[in-house]
Amino acid sequence: MPSGTEFHALRHVGGTLRVLDQTVLPWEERELVLRRAHDVAGAIRRLSVRGAPLIGVAAAYGIALELNAEPGPESLERACTLLKAARPTAVNLAWAVDRVRAADPTGDPQLALAEARAIEAEEQAASDAIAAHGADLLRDARRVMTHCNTGALAAPGRGTALAVIAELAERGTLELAIATESRPLLQGARLTVYELNRLGIPHELIVDSAASGLIASGAVDAVVVGCDRVAANGDVANKVGTYGLALAAGAAGIPFVVAGPTSTVDSECPSGEDIAIEQRDPEEVRLLSGTPLTLPGTRCRNPAFDVTPANLITALVTERGVVEPAAVAPT
Amino acid sequence: MPSGTEFHALRHVGGTLRVLDQTVLPWEERELVLRRAHDVAGAIRRLSVRGAPLIGVAAAYGIALELNAEPGPESLERACTLLKAARPTAVNLAWAVDRVRAADPTGDPQLALAEARAIEAEEQAASDAIAAHGADLLRDARRVMTHCNTGALAAPGRGTALAVIAELAERGTLELAIATESRPLLQGARLTVYELNRLGIPHELIVDSAASGLIASGAVDAVVVGCDRVAANGDVANKVGTYGLALAAGAAGIPFVVAGPTSTVDSECPSGEDIAIEQRDPEEVRLLSGTPLTLPGTRCRNPAFDVTPANLITALVTERGVVEPAAVAPT
Repeated sequence: MPSGTEFHALRHVGGTLRVLDQTVLPWEERELVLRRAHDVAGAIRRLSVRGAPLIGVAAAYGIALELNAEPGPESLERACTLLKAARPTAVNLAWAVDRVRAADPTGDPQLALAEARAIEAEEQAASDAIAAHGADLLRDARRVMTHCNTGALAAPGRGTALAVIAELAERGTLELAIATESRPLLQGARLTVYELNRLGIPHELIVDSAASGLIASGAVDAVVVGCDRVAANGDVANKVGTYGLALAAGAAGIPFVVAGPTSTVDSECPSGEDIAIEQRDPEEVRLLSGTPLTLPGTRCRNPAFDVTPANLITALVTERGVVEPAAVAPT
Repeated sequence: MPSGTEFHALRHVGGTLRVLDQTVLPWEERELVLRRAHDVAGAIRRLSVRGAPLIGVAAAYGIALELNAEPGPESLERACTLLKAARPTAVNLAWAVDRVRAADPTGDPQLALAEARAIEAEEQAASDAIAAHGADLLRDARRVMTHCNTGALAAPGRGTALAVIAELAERGTLELAIATESRPLLQGARLTVYELNRLGIPHELIVDSAASGLIASGAVDAVVVGCDRVAANGDVANKVGTYGLALAAGAAGIPFVVAGPTSTVDSECPSGEDIAIEQRDPEEVRLLSGTPLTLPGTRCRNPAFDVTPANLITALVTERGVVEPAAVAPT
């Protein structure tokens, strides 16, 4: 795929779901063809499809695929259970599955597909609105840091936090996007750099632990990140490392902004303490692209997310506008 | 070298300096034979020898090697200039060079060697004292996090911060050492895990960005790190990522302790703002063991250190005892 051409993280074509395999980017642009709910759950588990809003949409299509092969309420339930269990932290996943189930209680393939398409279209519109609201809020920020990947590979449309950065670049006010590499799976180094490169946005990559010192040194005007789950009190679960950026932004007095669609808000989750943090395979820490980074058998802890308390968040940007994080929960 | 046997990061033998090449650990235990100041400066620059106290000792021996080959004041000056420029941030390097020069102004090879040996012996004694003082201070800490490598590969004797952890383990009060991997060069994953493994201390490895969330979750009782330079006001320059750990420890109300010999204190440097931060080759961020982590040509920023302000440091442990960081400077 040449630079500058449009790319699709996900598309529903001819009764299959085609997804760009994010585990081999940026070196290879390989499309996976998924035919059943089981294929979609597997792709979500191994992070071929990732990003909280995108896995919600993928799961919705996963139900439609399963019902297309085998209609009916039993098949519906099986697909819903399988897909919801694929990753525990992102609430969009459960939200999208529940929404398809509610729209299609009998397991009709056409109803499920229509609902999946509706969810995708709504999330695309949300992305545009998030980009506009976020860019309005950060209009004075010339050098913006982000973490992990939150662009077109993480959400339908242009994404969430990275959509805000892209909008600032389009408006001509952005000087530099600073991307953290986002160990262990390097979504920043691999995916955010890939997207920024295709968008022609000036950017710079740093190791995760350089972020706090760089913020303290005055080299950053604002930090904008996505979110995997927002609790009712405004606490945010996001990619491991986010909390550290929020602490540093707070200490430096620069805005720390969280961007995500309202589908990421979990009003039934009272606070960050109630968010289940996914613990992933220690091998992700021990190895990098198959290369061992430490002695074999070393015990590793590999939380995928951390929780940033609402009091460290300047604003949450959703498709509905900019809100104080403590006022996040829909009433 | 089998596990359990003693290892030497550095030893002066038969008119050469033998150093364990830290760039190939833990997979290969290769000894480099250094014969001139130029060899020592090169080994320091490419981090074959690293750790603030250790590079001071290596530089002192580097002068002795040079004078052994070519005695006299001109040779002395050339060696001093070359070695001081090898790395800018660690003050021990300049301190050790200046000390040998002062003890041996005419460039006599025997005087230089005697002074290098004296520095090494003093730093070894400092390590033991630091370990004892630090373990007294942290006697209630069961789970201790550390960053980068600060053991026998970083300083003569048992090291600095890692010597404190080793002493806690020897006293039987330590349950777990938590090591950060310390990107970009993985001194934690490669060297600290290697040392903890050889010492038989229970340990766990995490990616750098998992540290803050782990501290916030209550899984850590104390953080102890080394230092590359301590300013007169108690601000500390140390491996990039240290400042973020200090912020997280402060927010969680757990001790954040800095350990290092008084040779690391730079009383002529008023504050952290005056410390020159070494910027290293962007390729260290782009590649890992030769494997590209991002698109080729991606612009990277690679600061080797950051500055932690004195007000975030619970205590500085030196061979003289435990001091409040603001009272650090020798009077």
